[in-house]
Amino acid sequence: MSFALAPGATIGILGGGQLGRMLALAAARLGLKAHIYSNDPDSPAFDVCGARTLASFEDEKSLADFAVNVDVVTYEFENVPARTAAILADLSIVRPSPEVLATCQDRLVEKEFLTANGIATAAYMRVDDAGSLARAVAQLGRPSILKTRRFGYDGKGQVLVREGADLAVTFRSLGGAPAILEAIVPFAKEISVVAARGQDGQFAAYNVCENAHENHILKFTRAPALLAPDVAAEAVRLARAIADALDYIGVLAVEMFVVDPSGGAGEGAAELRVNEIAPRVHNSGHWTLDGALTSQFEQHVRAVAGWPLGATGRHGASVEMWNLIGEEVFAWEQILREPGANLHLYGKAEARPGRKMGHVTRVLS
Amino acid sequence: MSFALAPGATIGILGGGQLGRMLALAAARLGLKAHIYSNDPDSPAFDVCGARTLASFEDEKSLADFAVNVDVVTYEFENVPARTAAILADLSIVRPSPEVLATCQDRLVEKEFLTANGIATAAYMRVDDAGSLARAVAQLGRPSILKTRRFGYDGKGQVLVREGADLAVTFRSLGGAPAILEAIVPFAKEISVVAARGQDGQFAAYNVCENAHENHILKFTRAPALLAPDVAAEAVRLARAIADALDYIGVLAVEMFVVDPSGGAGEGAAELRVNEIAPRVHNSGHWTLDGALTSQFEQHVRAVAGWPLGATGRHGASVEMWNLIGEEVFAWEQILREPGANLHLYGKAEARPGRKMGHVTRVLS
Repeated sequence: MSFALAPGATIGILGGGQLGRMLALAAARLGLKAHIYSNDPDSPAFDVCGARTLASFEDEKSLADFAVNVDVVTYEFENVPARTAAILADLSIVRPSPEVLATCQDRLVEKEFLTANGIATAAYMRVDDAGSLARAVAQLGRPSILKTRRFGYDGKGQVLVREGADLAVTFRSLGGAPAILEAIVPFAKEISVVAARGQDGQFAAYNVCENAHENHILKFTRAPALLAPDVAAEAVRLARAIADALDYIGVLAVEMFVVDPSGGAGEGAAELRVNEIAPRVHNSGHWTLDGALTSQFEQHVRAVAGWPLGATGRHGASVEMWNLIGEEVFAWEQILREPGANLHLYGKAEARPGRKMGHVTRVLS
Repeated sequence: MSFALAPGATIGILGGGQLGRMLALAAARLGLKAHIYSNDPDSPAFDVCGARTLASFEDEKSLADFAVNVDVVTYEFENVPARTAAILADLSIVRPSPEVLATCQDRLVEKEFLTANGIATAAYMRVDDAGSLARAVAQLGRPSILKTRRFGYDGKGQVLVREGADLAVTFRSLGGAPAILEAIVPFAKEISVVAARGQDGQFAAYNVCENAHENHILKFTRAPALLAPDVAAEAVRLARAIADALDYIGVLAVEMFVVDPSGGAGEGAAELRVNEIAPRVHNSGHWTLDGALTSQFEQHVRAVAGWPLGATGRHGASVEMWNLIGEEVFAWEQILREPGANLHLYGKAEARPGRKMGHVTRVLS
């Protein structure tokens, strides 16, 4: 279905965290209204929208009211229940589509989708019980990583399978949920491609990002990634192939590992393994708020509104983004004093450990 | 009084137009909440804030409730009634101060303030009735401009006194309000200085802006203005002198005429006449949203929050800003397709003639 919203139309956003907040801010700049649907009364996005629904994602009456009061629905997280997405898609337009959600919210389905499209991932096997875990470990070796198929993020829902670990205990440690075992990828570098695809198939990628994690949480992103040009081009090609195969509308991020069989010694020998598809705006794209001609949030709004995509060029020679996690946010005063630093705070009341409280970008010339 | 807000604090903003909207968006980026107070149910700023009061500016109960629920009060327009400002200042901190408002909302008081500080303006005389208008016209000549002392903007509340015009009719045409007569300044160029002053006296100006008006409404701004360096420096010096004399806190804009006695032929002969002080963020500073390291809206929020001012450097070689007035906003689709154009729409429902509906910026490298 092809359409274009007019200014003044309302974008419904499922989820009220910082991604929903920054989407609402981008919509406002373009003269669009945002209606935030969240189950958390303290949602940061509630502070920046004209309409809000506080209800659970299983509340069918609230979902239906929301769907008929907005012109298009999008979301800030992929763990939207299938039934929720179906109710919304019945009454409104959901972008990206419920089919995309179904593919990307289940690690096994996602890996099977990638494999079917000829895209390399870590080796993986399906795990439904301690017995299938034992068979998978026999195949993929130790250490390897057991991950729940659904609801994992920032390292939640995964456990390392070490030498000597009791596999029944390991399987129970994730609550007995359906899982997959993944071989460990000996990566030289973690990268991501943040890109958008419009309803007409138009595709636009930002510079490939290079990411560093701490305690499974993104800590730092630099764009462009320091990569051989052919590797960067291949990364973008993979993201485009994924977006096309999903008939995707909106911004997506594809996380990849760069594997260098020569241990970093060789040029051009690098290979890519796709780790994860995020069917939404992504933390590794936050640098685009200050460092790109069009931010990822505006780009997502443009795509779901049926508007042309914006230019993805970069201001300056490179851009870096640091997350402010937990108490790191207390450096806000120091950051405010730093010329050229761009402070973004998410309006969260409590600086809990591991909680993303804000970020800072620096455009380097 | 010196203080610094903490993230999560609330900035109260009087006025719900596009300036209030862009202030609220800037506050949100910095983790501050915005509470908008407006007498217009269709206020564009209501769509982007966490708290809103819909009440008249004379409603003392609503004003008092507002004042005690916010941490600092600022405003998007200078025509705040004196009694309103006094009530708010009793219960909260108002920035810029009610004294600044009193000076800048009355053209006569403002000109007397400038004159007392040795700053050149157009020649002017006070006009209270047809008799004093006749005396002023005898002194300042025709054509000259009769302006109400208060509540004028975008050419409203002013009339040209032509050769042969009946002065009694002219005076009545402005409703008999207290007025001033201003001599016409034969200007070569209209410029403005958008600058900020912090609570500690820190001062930071953006590049001088060059402005073009159509039907008394700002149409176009370019930064930096094409000016001899000594003229630009003198313009900034005047803005600083004004901000210091007002003990100003926040962003202000000073509109000036560049008078070139040699008719544009000479270098360095230019003189400046201050036309108007806007004690708020200003239309000629909208280019800073995309073209400067810190936008004027963030800068104002920083100043009124008691935070350090941000860097005012420019992205790119120059920046231009075009207002989208009335039906010009219908070009939004074309602007969305233009690489490097930054579209800003204000969420106003109806594109009435003369109404500012949005703006577009282009950063030129």
